[in-house]
Amino acid sequence: MTAPRTIALDAMGGDHGPEVVIPGAALSLVRHPALSFRIFGHQARISAELDKQPALAARCEIIHTDTVVAMHEKPSQAMRRGKGTSMWLAVEDVKAGRAHAAVSAGNTGALMAMSKLILRPMAGIERPAIAALWPTVKSECIVLDVGANIGADARQLIDFALMGAAMGRALFHADRPSVGLLNVGVEEIKGGEAVRDAHTWLKESQNLPLAYHGFVEGDQIGQGVVDVVVVEGFAGNIALKTAEGTARQIGQYLRMAMTSSLVAKMGALLAKGGFEVLKKKMDPRRVNGGTFLGLNGIVIKSHGGTDALGFASAIDLGYDMAESDLVTRLAADLHAVEGQLAAVRAG
Amino acid sequence: MTAPRTIALDAMGGDHGPEVVIPGAALSLVRHPALSFRIFGHQARISAELDKQPALAARCEIIHTDTVVAMHEKPSQAMRRGKGTSMWLAVEDVKAGRAHAAVSAGNTGALMAMSKLILRPMAGIERPAIAALWPTVKSECIVLDVGANIGADARQLIDFALMGAAMGRALFHADRPSVGLLNVGVEEIKGGEAVRDAHTWLKESQNLPLAYHGFVEGDQIGQGVVDVVVVEGFAGNIALKTAEGTARQIGQYLRMAMTSSLVAKMGALLAKGGFEVLKKKMDPRRVNGGTFLGLNGIVIKSHGGTDALGFASAIDLGYDMAESDLVTRLAADLHAVEGQLAAVRAG
Repeated sequence: MTAPRTIALDAMGGDHGPEVVIPGAALSLVRHPALSFRIFGHQARISAELDKQPALAARCEIIHTDTVVAMHEKPSQAMRRGKGTSMWLAVEDVKAGRAHAAVSAGNTGALMAMSKLILRPMAGIERPAIAALWPTVKSECIVLDVGANIGADARQLIDFALMGAAMGRALFHADRPSVGLLNVGVEEIKGGEAVRDAHTWLKESQNLPLAYHGFVEGDQIGQGVVDVVVVEGFAGNIALKTAEGTARQIGQYLRMAMTSSLVAKMGALLAKGGFEVLKKKMDPRRVNGGTFLGLNGIVIKSHGGTDALGFASAIDLGYDMAESDLVTRLAADLHAVEGQLAAVRAG
Repeated sequence: MTAPRTIALDAMGGDHGPEVVIPGAALSLVRHPALSFRIFGHQARISAELDKQPALAARCEIIHTDTVVAMHEKPSQAMRRGKGTSMWLAVEDVKAGRAHAAVSAGNTGALMAMSKLILRPMAGIERPAIAALWPTVKSECIVLDVGANIGADARQLIDFALMGAAMGRALFHADRPSVGLLNVGVEEIKGGEAVRDAHTWLKESQNLPLAYHGFVEGDQIGQGVVDVVVVEGFAGNIALKTAEGTARQIGQYLRMAMTSSLVAKMGALLAKGGFEVLKKKMDPRRVNGGTFLGLNGIVIKSHGGTDALGFASAIDLGYDMAESDLVTRLAADLHAVEGQLAAVRAG
């Protein structure tokens, strides 16, 4: 049923390194038994973890390297030392065709810079983007760009729409995922020029591989109004962080409220099952993983501070992207609308 | 103790008109007994509501007009018919010195356009902004711009910082409110040029009427890390709406979770007091009201769909701004840093 897929793992990225990456891979392997891994990093540390995961060990190859990209290193610094690092080698594995996707919990800026250099943007794509999964009351949606770039012109927003739709097809199994452009609500200033021009193009173009919904506002993302939300990277990153922060804030309120009296405490104890349901719904590990879109290869950025469960979600995401043959299908989509897109570029 | 203050009310704005505006004013009068009101709109509808509020009726003057700005009218349309509308007359009252502040729940774009035309931006301010109150785990902070403009250059961001700090002094009674610039987390692209330039200026300038904190990210707003968060209006509006949407979404999760089993239902019933605490914490009516900053006069935009309690919050906000003599104090602040600001404008 499932084709054998190989994922390249940067074992040294993130706040915890192999201690999270290896158990994460073990979890993902349970869900996708046809997976195999090529693991880059410090041999001894990786082996120590693999000893505890015999099933995973049987489907792994370790490629040793001593050098790693530090979490707070500037991307330009990381690039200078680049080639020997576990991050570089993992991405290069995708380029060489030895892995179907690379997953790293390391430094986002460095990972994007290396991925661009090694894999190169796809033909016709000016700017790769980072797509996030966003939990909604219905299920999940895709939001991009959440921080690969600051600002975007109309053409780039359209590219994001096509890239997001291709990812949506892979994840949601919808032929033509619905796509909305994130915009503000005040009529007078509704959207800058780029947003308005992208809107016109998406509305008027025929036979797109997506169903264009129109503008959406920030409060509609979590309602699951569309499958894909398109926005330039500055506002997209701020929206994502603000949503995370608001969820945390309400969690803090909830804890305060449930300890505000003895009776509330007892009620909360009784409602424990309900709170578990809520906690699961709000668990950021379920949707961990930023997908780099628009490159000739699949790279997933896991949150640096996540645990094994979160890292497993990032691997799952890489697997789904590889399984759906995202890059080939997106290339076909881009090719199909090339003529229509040329007009936007010229305009 | 409290000086007598007069507030001009656009009774016809919002989804409900006088049926919300009048009871809202009555609530605010209880909190601020020295208030009086000049109420603009349809005499008969206003009187019908005032009949139920004798204390308020004694401190009111009704100025009749038949024409109103529709909620979804384009600002340019509204401006053409402008002068006779209840919205226009309320703002004009501030200009004429008959009222200390105007409050409207009407069309945001039209209200901003009229306010700019009637009151004019303050000397040295290129773009007025809309400031929102944002609940934090500590108390509240001010976020601006949440949608008056799209984009902002370094000078405009600095203006927003000064304007927000002046509002912060009025509300939080801090001499030098702390101010942060909203930015994204990815190192490589940290901020556009405008954000970086504003950061440098705020960091290096001496004797500012604010304590500059540096960059903040979206997830820090609700933690109350700073008193004032500065951001251009597109990202600011999206952040505000996204936070509202996330709160609503979690409310929906919570209701689902608390009805997921009979035991959870019983627990929720027992914890009712706790949930009331939470509900109060999350009540958007507590922080209702967008303050227009940078104009020669005080105008407050109430949420169009709010009820009397929410409208009362917007009036309270107008009262606090008038009470602190916001405009005069902000003018003094701007004058004090004029020399330093000239360099930014020239640069």
